[in-house]
Amino acid sequence: MFYKIEHNDIGTSARAGVITTDHGTFETPIFMPVGTAGTVKAMHQRELEQEADAPIILGNTYHLYLRPGLNIIEQAGGLHKFIGWKRSILTDSGGFQVYSLSGIRKINEEGVKFKSHIDGSAHFFTPESVMDIQRTIGADIVMAFDECTPYPCEYEYARKSMEMTHRWLGRCVTRMAETEPKYGYQQHLFPIVQGSVYKDLRLKSAEVIAEAGCVGNAIGGLSVGEPAEEMYAMSELVCSVLPKDKPRYLMGVGTPENLLENIALGIDMFDCVMPTRNARNGMLFTTQGIINIRNKKWENDFTPLDQGLDIYLNDYYTKAYVRHLVHNNEMLGAQIATIQNISFYLWLMREARKQIVAGTFREWKERMVKQCMQRL
Amino acid sequence: MFYKIEHNDIGTSARAGVITTDHGTFETPIFMPVGTAGTVKAMHQRELEQEADAPIILGNTYHLYLRPGLNIIEQAGGLHKFIGWKRSILTDSGGFQVYSLSGIRKINEEGVKFKSHIDGSAHFFTPESVMDIQRTIGADIVMAFDECTPYPCEYEYARKSMEMTHRWLGRCVTRMAETEPKYGYQQHLFPIVQGSVYKDLRLKSAEVIAEAGCVGNAIGGLSVGEPAEEMYAMSELVCSVLPKDKPRYLMGVGTPENLLENIALGIDMFDCVMPTRNARNGMLFTTQGIINIRNKKWENDFTPLDQGLDIYLNDYYTKAYVRHLVHNNEMLGAQIATIQNISFYLWLMREARKQIVAGTFREWKERMVKQCMQRL
Repeated sequence: MFYKIEHNDIGTSARAGVITTDHGTFETPIFMPVGTAGTVKAMHQRELEQEADAPIILGNTYHLYLRPGLNIIEQAGGLHKFIGWKRSILTDSGGFQVYSLSGIRKINEEGVKFKSHIDGSAHFFTPESVMDIQRTIGADIVMAFDECTPYPCEYEYARKSMEMTHRWLGRCVTRMAETEPKYGYQQHLFPIVQGSVYKDLRLKSAEVIAEAGCVGNAIGGLSVGEPAEEMYAMSELVCSVLPKDKPRYLMGVGTPENLLENIALGIDMFDCVMPTRNARNGMLFTTQGIINIRNKKWENDFTPLDQGLDIYLNDYYTKAYVRHLVHNNEMLGAQIATIQNISFYLWLMREARKQIVAGTFREWKERMVKQCMQRL
Repeated sequence: MFYKIEHNDIGTSARAGVITTDHGTFETPIFMPVGTAGTVKAMHQRELEQEADAPIILGNTYHLYLRPGLNIIEQAGGLHKFIGWKRSILTDSGGFQVYSLSGIRKINEEGVKFKSHIDGSAHFFTPESVMDIQRTIGADIVMAFDECTPYPCEYEYARKSMEMTHRWLGRCVTRMAETEPKYGYQQHLFPIVQGSVYKDLRLKSAEVIAEAGCVGNAIGGLSVGEPAEEMYAMSELVCSVLPKDKPRYLMGVGTPENLLENIALGIDMFDCVMPTRNARNGMLFTTQGIINIRNKKWENDFTPLDQGLDIYLNDYYTKAYVRHLVHNNEMLGAQIATIQNISFYLWLMREARKQIVAGTFREWKERMVKQCMQRL
């Protein structure tokens, strides 16, 4: 069984579940660190395993397709072997990067024509080719090819785009059914709900996606600039339609607050570059609140980064030291901050699950959102 | 006892020794990774301990004095505590950086006036102030303030500079005798032999430095552009004068070949940015030879970086993966390459010591120089 609910929260729609892939079993809610080009930037694979205890990471199809390219990944025996990661991997469809990174692109019914942001070379992605690419990359969970609409987005554009995404889903499902995994383990397709911030479109899309009968479902096109309240409204609406017995993945979200609020609405899986990207800019997420480690106030603070976290960093490093490193653009500053942020995000998910199981999630969430979102 | 020789090689002047500081006992010959601003770039302290097993690292007085500054380091309780390093530390005198990094400088008998390469602020280093600075930083081994002459260097300039370095040494020794360690553990001063590539100057300098009666002695002003043969000639000459019962530290050297040749001449301690700096450019030092991991030939080589090294990296990463990372300027590429290079340099020192003790150093060195210096 791919997904099993172990506990439904009383006060909210939160769920404590378990997902099983051929690379392991892990608990939900879960946050998936983003390993864009086959590396969670600044963090060793062993640190992801042993410090953050991340059971699943995300790879970006667009980046991996361009570099190192499918030929290398296939020769390596798939992405897991290429990057030395024995646990689960999810790959996105490449759609989001095509829209956001590639300057020149043309979308039509057949697919998307785009130019590489690296060397300007021309490429064409179709629902079929993206399924083939993800077969070669070999992630445990693969995403349907969709169009991710920007925010704001005209109603008519959002409707037409969504309908095309639905048609593309049919082609993705067909292609997956026609092809076999390349490396001897199963790959699971997740379809993606679109519809911008329009309730009727989101409802319609959720129905279509639910009907596809996949083992898990995703919500895309949110956290693209809309107010958090709109995101929550869409998330709640879509969760009311998507089947309860399958995991729900909210793509590209978000802050610790966004995660906890969406867990309460019934979301089980998240990914976001925020903890890694912000780490490299000196923003630390901790159990006690958010730290801009560049601030002068930390220059002689010789306490550990986050005493609320049982993490080896605390045996070595202080805020003053990390401030010094980040201030001097030393790589070790980004390395430490990344371990902190990813470890905190994973801790937050484990803690949320404990609270769901204990029946204390709602109160804990109210308190924790205030605590971990305050600026220290 | 600070230094003890455990074995003298039969076929060369190599020695297997032991150095003891208040932060531990370690074996020589030893290579000290360079932790310029309180960080061995791209490498965690725990990795230095557990992967490379480095018993001592080097800090740069010039950099630490400018950032984070003495006030912060003193508040932290010294550099060890500031950076989370429980083993030994050596700091240089800042002289070399003043000459190489600081654009505007003025050297006279009193000291050196220079401008910070960071913000252009004016500073003045004297033998006394540099001793005081190193008292505050709190390294286990501190270096005398010297002038490091460039290569080539006129005889007369080299002679006058050397004589001033000798007078400065007297002032350093006096200042150290007048002051106490700030953090409750001992600090040992090493004087520095200068004299450019002139035999008579080097001999004279070695005699003066030997007479100072410090617990260890250093050779500076080499590896600044002169041919390797000149370096070896100076090293051999100086080692013939410096006392046998004290460790000899050749500053800023070098390639694996340079290290092994100088060990054969009687050198015990080394430091160099090469393994860390070159790692960040994709050059890997391995037991089998030197790898430029950017080369296309590695793109589908799925073997570990260095099968001759018992290192955890081999359980995770391949040449093809590291090539991909370095090619994409991913930080993890520099991180992996740094662990590899520093681990290899430390391995080379441990291996050299084993061979000295076994009486097989000479033959092993001839073979190993060829092996580890070949381009793969």
